Amino acid sequence: MEKEQNLEQEEMVAAEIDPEETAEETVQQSEKGSEENGRIAELESKLEEAENRYLRLQADFDNFRRRSRLDLEAGAKYRAQSLISDLLPAMDNFERALKMEADNDQAKSLMQGVEMVYRSILEALKKEGAEPIEAEGKEFDPNMHQAVMQVQEENFGSNIVVEEFQKGYILKDRVIRPSMVKVNQ
Amino acid sequence: MEKEQNLEQEEMVAAEIDPEETAEETVQQSEKGSEENGRIAELESKLEEAENRYLRLQADFDNFRRRSRLDLEAGAKYRAQSLISDLLPAMDNFERALKMEADNDQAKSLMQGVEMVYRSILEALKKEGAEPIEAEGKEFDPNMHQAVMQVQEENFGSNIVVEEFQKGYILKDRVIRPSMVKVNQ
Repeated sequence: MEKEQNLEQEEMVAAEIDPEETAEETVQQSEKGSEENGRIAELESKLEEAENRYLRLQADFDNFRRRSRLDLEAGAKYRAQSLISDLLPAMDNFERALKMEADNDQAKSLMQGVEMVYRSILEALKKEGAEPIEAEGKEFDPNMHQAVMQVQEENFGSNIVVEEFQKGYILKDRVIRPSMVKVNQ
Repeated sequence: MEKEQNLEQEEMVAAEIDPEETAEETVQQSEKGSEENGRIAELESKLEEAENRYLRLQADFDNFRRRSRLDLEAGAKYRAQSLISDLLPAMDNFERALKMEADNDQAKSLMQGVEMVYRSILEALKKEGAEPIEAEGKEFDPNMHQAVMQVQEENFGSNIVVEEFQKGYILKDRVIRPSMVKVNQ
C-alpha cells in the first residue's frame, strides 16, 4: 500500500518534468538542450526504478526475517517431539510393570527401583514440556481422549471418563498421543 | 530510518521542478545549460548511490539467509540434547539395576521387563542420534573418556581403558557426557 503511494508520487514528479513541455517554453531550444533533457528524463526514470527495486527487496527481506523467526520458534518449541513419541512405548511398559504385585523382598525392592526410574523419566519429560494427559474421573474431551469403549453406569456422571486403558501425552499445546479411554454415556 | 531518507529525497526532487525556476530558465540560455548539466550530475550520483544501496541490502539479505539456514540446521541437529541429558540419570539407574542377580522367578521376570524397557529407550535415543560411548577395552580417548583412576597392570595394553564406572553418551558429533573410566598407564 505504502509502496503503491510512493510509486504514484514518483510518476507525478516524472510527468511534471516532461521534456516536451519544457521544450514548448523556450523559443530557441538548442539541440544540445533537448539531448540533455532526454538524459535527465532517462536518469530520473532509472532512479525511480532503482528506488522501487530497493523498496521491494526491503519488503522481501522483512518478510523473510519474520518467517525465519517463526520457524526457529516453532522448531524450538516442539524440538523433542520425535524423541518423546519414541519413548512412549517404554512409558507404557513401565506402567504395566508397576501394576504387578511383588511377592518377595527382592521383587519389592526391584519394583521400587523401577518406580524411581519411571518418575525420573516423567520428570525429564515434564522439564521439556511433556506430560501425561489426565483422564480418569475427568469430563471426556475429544481433543485429548479417544473413546474406545462406551458404558452406561449410574454411579458415574454423564460424559465422564471411567477408565483409562493407555495414557495419553501432551507436549506444550500439542497432543502427542490421546488417552485411550472408556466413557460413561 | 530508511523510509525517512526516501521521503527526503522525494522532497528534494519536488523542490527542483519548482515552476518559478523553469520560468527563469527561459531568460538565460547559457545558465539553463549549466543548470541541466548540474541536474544530470546530481541524478547520476543519486542513481549510483541508489544502486550501491541496493547491492548492500542484497548482500545483507544473502548473509542473513545463510546464517538462518545454519541456525535452523544446528537447532535440528541437536534438538533433543536437553531431554537426552535429563534422561541420563535414569539410564544410570537402569544399568545399576541390571547388575543385580535375581534369586527368584518373579524378580527374574521383572529384571527381564526392566531390560526390555532399557533397550527400548536406548533404541529411541539411537534413532535421535544418541549412543553410549564405547570404553572398556578401547584406547583411552581424552575427547570421549574421563580418567578418574589410573592403574599399572601388565595383562592390559598401555593407555587402554580397563574399567568403566559410568557410561558416557554422544549425540551425533557432540559428547553429551564423557565416560568415567579407569585407565592402564
